[in-house]
Amino acid sequence: MKEYVIGIDIGGTFTKTGFVDRDGNISGENSSPTDIFENVEDYIANLVKELKAAEKQLEKPYKILGIGIGAPNGNYHKGTIEQATNLKWQGIVPFAELMQKHYDLPVKLTNDANAAALGEKVYGGAKYMKDFVMITLGTGLGSGIVVNGDLVYGHDGFAGEQGHVNVVENGRQCGCGNLGCLETYASAPGIKRTVFELLAKNTEGSELVNYTFDELDSEIIFNAAEKGDPVALKAFEHTGKILGKHLADTVALFSPSAIFLFGGLAKAGDYIISPTKKWLEHFVMRLFKDKVKILPSQLIGKNVAVLGASALIWNELDK
Amino acid sequence: MKEYVIGIDIGGTFTKTGFVDRDGNISGENSSPTDIFENVEDYIANLVKELKAAEKQLEKPYKILGIGIGAPNGNYHKGTIEQATNLKWQGIVPFAELMQKHYDLPVKLTNDANAAALGEKVYGGAKYMKDFVMITLGTGLGSGIVVNGDLVYGHDGFAGEQGHVNVVENGRQCGCGNLGCLETYASAPGIKRTVFELLAKNTEGSELVNYTFDELDSEIIFNAAEKGDPVALKAFEHTGKILGKHLADTVALFSPSAIFLFGGLAKAGDYIISPTKKWLEHFVMRLFKDKVKILPSQLIGKNVAVLGASALIWNELDK
Repeated sequence: MKEYVIGIDIGGTFTKTGFVDRDGNISGENSSPTDIFENVEDYIANLVKELKAAEKQLEKPYKILGIGIGAPNGNYHKGTIEQATNLKWQGIVPFAELMQKHYDLPVKLTNDANAAALGEKVYGGAKYMKDFVMITLGTGLGSGIVVNGDLVYGHDGFAGEQGHVNVVENGRQCGCGNLGCLETYASAPGIKRTVFELLAKNTEGSELVNYTFDELDSEIIFNAAEKGDPVALKAFEHTGKILGKHLADTVALFSPSAIFLFGGLAKAGDYIISPTKKWLEHFVMRLFKDKVKILPSQLIGKNVAVLGASALIWNELDK
Repeated sequence: MKEYVIGIDIGGTFTKTGFVDRDGNISGENSSPTDIFENVEDYIANLVKELKAAEKQLEKPYKILGIGIGAPNGNYHKGTIEQATNLKWQGIVPFAELMQKHYDLPVKLTNDANAAALGEKVYGGAKYMKDFVMITLGTGLGSGIVVNGDLVYGHDGFAGEQGHVNVVENGRQCGCGNLGCLETYASAPGIKRTVFELLAKNTEGSELVNYTFDELDSEIIFNAAEKGDPVALKAFEHTGKILGKHLADTVALFSPSAIFLFGGLAKAGDYIISPTKKWLEHFVMRLFKDKVKILPSQLIGKNVAVLGASALIWNELDK
C-alpha cells in the first residue's frame, strides 16, 4: 500500500501542503491563504477542508503516516508556534494539538530551516550523513544543525539560530533588535546592504548604481557578477568572507561532514560558495582543514517547504 | 555486588586512574608516569600492571563494567589517540584496541574536556540536563557539548573545539597556528596575556607590575582582584567579555540549559562568572535572554580527570 506523510509549510501569506512519499514525490500539492484568518481555529478548519479535498486526488489504496509542519518559531518539543511576528495568531499557539483534533496521527512541528535540514537528510544530499549543517540564505539566515542523525533543538526547542550570532561588534541593525548579526551580512538583504556600502565607499564603475535600495535584489547582483561587475563581485567576496569565517567556528564546534547552502542567495552558486569555502579554510583550526564540504542543497528548485515538513515524520520512521 | 568502572586520564607527564562507582566514589586511586615510555605497548603494559595492583584494594565481591579513558586528541568513534603533540607516541594510536588485549571489557575514549562534560552529567550539576555545555578554562580552553543527552563528537570524533573559534581577527598567536583563537584570551595563560596588555597600555597602579611573565599566573591575578587591584579587575572583566560574547553565539546554536565553567581560571568564581554572564546576556539574541545559567562546575576540587573518564561508561549504561 502506498504510504504518505502530509507536509505543511506555514508562511506569513500562504500555506503550502502536499502528500509526500518516502522518495520525495509530492501528490495533491496545494496552497491556501494564511493571513486572512485572524483566528487559528478558523485557519485550521480551512486548512483541513483543503487537505481533505486534495486527499481525494490520491490513488487508492494508501495510508497516511503522520503530519509534519514547518512554521516560524515552531517549537519541536511542545508542538507550539510561539510569538511568531509574521503570523496573526499571537502568544503561544498549541498548533500540533489543534491539528490532532482533526487527525488521529503523529504531528511534528519545527521551524522551516530545521525542516529544510531534515529534507536534505531524507531526500537530498545528506542522505548518508549523520552530522551536517544546513544554511538557508533567504530574507534571513536560517540554519538546521544535525548531530548524530538528529536535529539540534536545544532545551527550549529553539536551537540553530545561526543568523543571530554576532559577527561585527556594533555592526548592522538586525530585525531581532541586536547589532551585527550574521544575517545582516549573509542573506539576500545582507548582500544588498553590502553593495550599498561598497557604492558609498568606492568610486569604481558599476551597473548597480542604477538601482534604488528597494529595487536591488540578490538576483540583480548575481546577474551583474556574471557580467564581471566589480562591485557585485566584491559584494559576493565580502559576504563569503563573513559567512566562511563564521562557519569555521561552526566546524570547530560540530565538525560536520558537510555544510549545505540553500535559499535565494545560494542560487548564485560558486559566486557565494567559492569565497565561503576559501575563508572557512583560512580561519578554521588545522585539525579540520580540508575535511568539510560546502555544497549547494540538492533540493534547490524543489518544493523544499513541503518536503522539509514531511521529512520530520519520515526521519522518525527511518530510525 | 559492587560495580565499578575504571577511569583513566592520560596526561603528558602522569596518568591518573581509579575505580569509580555509579555515585562517583573513587577507590584504588593511582598515578603512574606517562612520558618515560617511548613506546605505547610498554606504557600500556605498565599501566595494566599498576591497575591490577590497585584492583587488589577493592572489597570483594565486585564487578568491573568497562574502561573509560580521557586522552588528548582522543577519537571517540575510533578509540584512537591521533597526533597528540604532548604525548611521545606519534601518529594514530589504536589505544582502545590495545587496552582490550588486556581487558575483555567495553573501552571508550574521548578527550579530557568531553570526559569532564560527561562527569558533570553523571556525577555533578548537569544530572538532569539533556542539553548543556562544559567549558574548561585551564592552560587552554576545552569544551564538551551535550545535545539531547549525548556528547557532540562530529563526523570525525573531534567536535567541541571551542577554544579555537576566532574571536579577534589577526589577534593573539595561538598554539594551534592560527591567530585570535578564543583560548588565547579566555584561559589561564589568556588572562595573563591580558594583564600584560593592560600594564603596557595604562599607567594606573597595580601590584601586578612586580611579576615577570613567567611568574604571573591566574591565581596571583585572582588574589590581586580580591584586594581590589584595578588591573586584575579589568583583566577579569575583559576576559569575561570575550568569553561571554562567544558564549552568546554558542547559546544561539545549541540553546543549552546551562553552561558550566571548570578549570584553574574558573576557581576565580564570580570574578569570571559575573562578567561572562553580563556580556552573554548583552550579546545574545532576545529569544534566549535570561534562559541560560552560567554555573561553576560541581566537580571543582574533585578528581575530575578520573571521574570524567569513568563517566564515559556510566553514561552508556544509563541509557
